[in-house]
Amino acid sequence: MNYSMIFYIIGWILDVEAALLVPSLAVSLIYHESCALAFFITIVLCLIPGVILVRKQPKNKVFYTREGSVTVALSWIVMSIMGSIPFLLSGSITNPVDALFETVSGFTTTGASILPAVEPLQHGILFWRSFTHWIGGMGVLVFLLCLLPLTGSGYHMNLMKAESPGPSVTKLVPKVQSTAKILYGLYLFLTVMEFVLLLVGQMPVFDSLCTVFGTAGTGGFGIKNDSFGSYSTYLQGVVTVFMILFGINFNVYFLFYMKKPKEALRCEEARWYLGIIAASILVITFFVRDFFDSLFLAFHHVAFQVASIITTTGFATVDFNLWPTIPKTILVLLMFIGACAGSTGGGIKVSRVVLLFRSLTKELSQSLHPNQVRKIHFEGRAVDHVVLRSVNVFMAAYILIFAISVLLIGIDNFDLVTNFTAVAATLNNIGPGLELVGPAQNFGLFSNFSKLVLTFDMLAGRLELFPLLLLFYRGTWKRF
Amino acid sequence: MNYSMIFYIIGWILDVEAALLVPSLAVSLIYHESCALAFFITIVLCLIPGVILVRKQPKNKVFYTREGSVTVALSWIVMSIMGSIPFLLSGSITNPVDALFETVSGFTTTGASILPAVEPLQHGILFWRSFTHWIGGMGVLVFLLCLLPLTGSGYHMNLMKAESPGPSVTKLVPKVQSTAKILYGLYLFLTVMEFVLLLVGQMPVFDSLCTVFGTAGTGGFGIKNDSFGSYSTYLQGVVTVFMILFGINFNVYFLFYMKKPKEALRCEEARWYLGIIAASILVITFFVRDFFDSLFLAFHHVAFQVASIITTTGFATVDFNLWPTIPKTILVLLMFIGACAGSTGGGIKVSRVVLLFRSLTKELSQSLHPNQVRKIHFEGRAVDHVVLRSVNVFMAAYILIFAISVLLIGIDNFDLVTNFTAVAATLNNIGPGLELVGPAQNFGLFSNFSKLVLTFDMLAGRLELFPLLLLFYRGTWKRF
Repeated sequence: MNYSMIFYIIGWILDVEAALLVPSLAVSLIYHESCALAFFITIVLCLIPGVILVRKQPKNKVFYTREGSVTVALSWIVMSIMGSIPFLLSGSITNPVDALFETVSGFTTTGASILPAVEPLQHGILFWRSFTHWIGGMGVLVFLLCLLPLTGSGYHMNLMKAESPGPSVTKLVPKVQSTAKILYGLYLFLTVMEFVLLLVGQMPVFDSLCTVFGTAGTGGFGIKNDSFGSYSTYLQGVVTVFMILFGINFNVYFLFYMKKPKEALRCEEARWYLGIIAASILVITFFVRDFFDSLFLAFHHVAFQVASIITTTGFATVDFNLWPTIPKTILVLLMFIGACAGSTGGGIKVSRVVLLFRSLTKELSQSLHPNQVRKIHFEGRAVDHVVLRSVNVFMAAYILIFAISVLLIGIDNFDLVTNFTAVAATLNNIGPGLELVGPAQNFGLFSNFSKLVLTFDMLAGRLELFPLLLLFYRGTWKRF
Repeated sequence: MNYSMIFYIIGWILDVEAALLVPSLAVSLIYHESCALAFFITIVLCLIPGVILVRKQPKNKVFYTREGSVTVALSWIVMSIMGSIPFLLSGSITNPVDALFETVSGFTTTGASILPAVEPLQHGILFWRSFTHWIGGMGVLVFLLCLLPLTGSGYHMNLMKAESPGPSVTKLVPKVQSTAKILYGLYLFLTVMEFVLLLVGQMPVFDSLCTVFGTAGTGGFGIKNDSFGSYSTYLQGVVTVFMILFGINFNVYFLFYMKKPKEALRCEEARWYLGIIAASILVITFFVRDFFDSLFLAFHHVAFQVASIITTTGFATVDFNLWPTIPKTILVLLMFIGACAGSTGGGIKVSRVVLLFRSLTKELSQSLHPNQVRKIHFEGRAVDHVVLRSVNVFMAAYILIFAISVLLIGIDNFDLVTNFTAVAATLNNIGPGLELVGPAQNFGLFSNFSKLVLTFDMLAGRLELFPLLLLFYRGTWKRF
C-alpha cells in the first residue's frame, strides 16, 4: 500500500477544504455573525496538516485500484470530520455525533438532518450546510483532479473510478483530467442557470444560493422548517425541473456540448429515467387528486415529490407520509431506483436497474435455449460480463448492508417502517423516509449508535459501497 | 412445444390427485361428515379428464427445459384449481378466490389462511387442508416420477429441475427415477418418526396426522385457532425439532442412508443453516427473556418461532408481533433466508445466500487484483459460473416480483408493514407476516385482486420463480 501517496492526496483534500470554507467565512462576515470565528479556526485546523502533508510529492508512484479506493474512502471520512467542526465551534450543534451525521449528510448529498428547526441557525452555518451538497455532488476528488498536476499514470482513473457513481466510468475525452474539467464546467453552468431563474422568481439571493446548492448536488438540506412548502409555485416549478436535470447522466450534456444532439437524445439510461418519472407522476396524481384543490396543483406537487425522491434530493412541499399506500409504495420504490449513473443523484441507479432486468430476460431465454450465446446490450453496445458481474455483486452488497443496518438500528426499538425507510433514505442518499423520519420529521430521535450506523450508510451509498467495504476487508491491508 | 406430452402428464397429475383425495374421503366417512360427498364429486371430476388424457402415451418424445417448466407450472395450477373444489362444494369456503388461495397456500406449503377460525371446519376438510402440505412439500411431479414409466430421455430431469428447490439439482443416484423414490422414502420415514413421537406425547391421532403433514411439508396450516399455543411443551418441542429436520437438505439424509456419515456431516449448507438457527435463537432469547416466566420457557418459545420461520413452516405458539424491534427484524430476515435447498422449506435458500456472500468477497478481492483468477467454492467443489449467474438472476427476479406485488396489493390501502410482510410471507411460503397478517391474524381482509396477486406469489415462491415467469414470457410460446 502506497501510504505516502495516500497521505499526500489527503493533504491536498485538506487544503482544498480550507479553500472551500472561505465562502462560508465570507457569508458570516457579511451578516456580522459569531460563526465567522468557527470557520476561521477550522480553516487553520485544515491548513496545518494540509500544508505539511503536501510539501513534496512522494517518489513512489505505485497507485492501483486499492490505493484509489482507500484514498477516496479516507478522504471522505477526513473531510467530513473536519467539516463538522464549524457546527460544533459555533454551538449550532453540541453533540459531535450529530455534527458528524449532519456533515456527512451534507457531503453525501443525503440531506437527512438531526436538527428539529433550521431557521434559528446563523446564515454562515446554513450556507456551509448547503454548500457541502454542492461540493459532494460532483465529488471532491474529481474537483482535485481538475487542479492537481499529479504525474504518473493510473492516479486519475483509479481515483475517479472509486468516486464516480454508476456501474462503469466513461472517460468523455481521452485525458481524465480534461474529463473532470468538462464535468465541473457543465455542473457550474447548470448551477448558474438555476440561480438566475430563481432570482427572476424573486427569491432572495441567500435563499437562491442555498437552494441551488441543494438542487445541484441533489442534496436536500433546506433553510426553512417546512423545506419548500412556503415558496411560490413558480419557484417550486423551477426546482422540480432542475432536480430532474441534475439527475440525468452528465454524458448527455457533454454530447450536447460537443454538438452531438442526436447521440445525446439516444441515451438509453436518460430515456428510462424520464419514462419512469412520467409514469410515476401520472399514477400518483391519479391517486392523490382529492388531496389538492385542483388537478394542476396535484400534478405540480406530485411532480415535485417524484423528482425530489427519484433524484434523491429530498426537498418536500407536502407531507407525503399522509398519502395513500400506492403512492407511498411508488415513492419507496423510486427511493431505491435512484437517478442516472454519472449524475449527482444517488440510489441504485437507473442503468443498474435496467441491466438487472435485461439479465433476467436473458436468463429466461437462456433457460429455453441452453446453448444460445446472447449478449446484453445497453446504450447501443454489448455489455462486458465484468460490468454485469459487478452490477450483480453490487446488489448483493447492497442487500447485505441494508439488512445489517436495519437490524442494528432496531436497538432503538422504533417501528419497522421507520427503521426500514431510515436506512433506505440514508443508503440511497435521499434524506426523508416515512413515519418517524418522514418529510416533516428529523433523525434526531435516534441514539448515537444508530446515527453512526446511518452515517456509515450515507458514505457507503455515496461511494457506491465498494470503497467503504474495502476499508474493512482484510485483503486490502495485506502486502502483495 | 410438445403439447400432447404436456397434456398427457397433466392427465396423470389429475389421476394422482384423485387418488390423493381418497384418504380425505375416508376421514370424512369415518366421522360421518357431509363433506364426503364433496370429496367424491371432486374425485370424479378429476378422473373424467384424467382418464381421457392418459389413454395413450404420445409419440412425440421431444421434451426440453421449456416443456419441463411449462408442465410443472401448469400442473400446479390445475392441481390447485381441482383441489379447491372440496372447500367450495362442502360450503367451508364460499368465495372461489378464497378457496383457490387456501388450496395454493396448502400445496405450496405456505400455510397462509383466509379463514378467521378453523375449529368449526369438518374433519375431512381439515385433513385435506393439511394433507395438501404433505403432497406439496416434496413435490407432485417428483411423486409422479416414482410411479410413471415414461420412456424417452430428458423427461425426468427436466421435470425434476423445474420442481425441486435450490440453485442446482443433484441426482443422488444415476437414475432420476431412483432419486425420486429414495427422496420419497426418506420423506415418509421422517414423517412416520414424528407421528410416533407425537402419539407418545398423547396427541390425538387426527391432530397428530394433521400436525405431521404441516411439519413435513413445512406448511403451517393448524387445526386450532391458536395454531400451536395450546399443546404441551413436549409436543411443541417435538415439532420444533422436526421443523428443523425437514428444513435440512435431503442430501444429508441420503448420505446417512448410504452409510456415509462423515460426508453427511460435512454438508456446508446444513452447517450454515444450523448456525444461523442457533445464533438467532440466542440473540432473540436475550431480547425477549422478560416476556416469559422463565429463561427456559423463553428459549423454548423462541426456538419454536425461529424454527417455524426459517423453515417457512409458519406454526406459532406465541404472537411475535408483540416482541421488540430487533427480534422482529431478525425474524423478517429469516423469512427471506429460508431453509436449505433440497428440503421441503421455502425462502431464498441458505445455499443461495452463502453463494451471494462468497461472490461479494470474491468481487472485493478481484477489485484489488484485477488479473486474478479465483473460483468460488461450495460444498467442497468449485461453483460453475452458470450456477452463480442463475443465483444472481434469481435475486433480480425475486426483487422484481416482490416490488411489483407490494405495489399491486397497495390498492387495498393497508399499512406498508402489512403489505411488505404479506408478500414476504407468501413469496417465501411462510404463512404469517406482521401487523394485520401477523400470526394471530389471517389474509381474509385482502380484496380478491390482492388475494390473486398473493396466490401468484405463493406459486412463484414454491416453484422458484422461473417456471411461472416462463409462462408469461413470449419466447416460451414461440416456435423454434
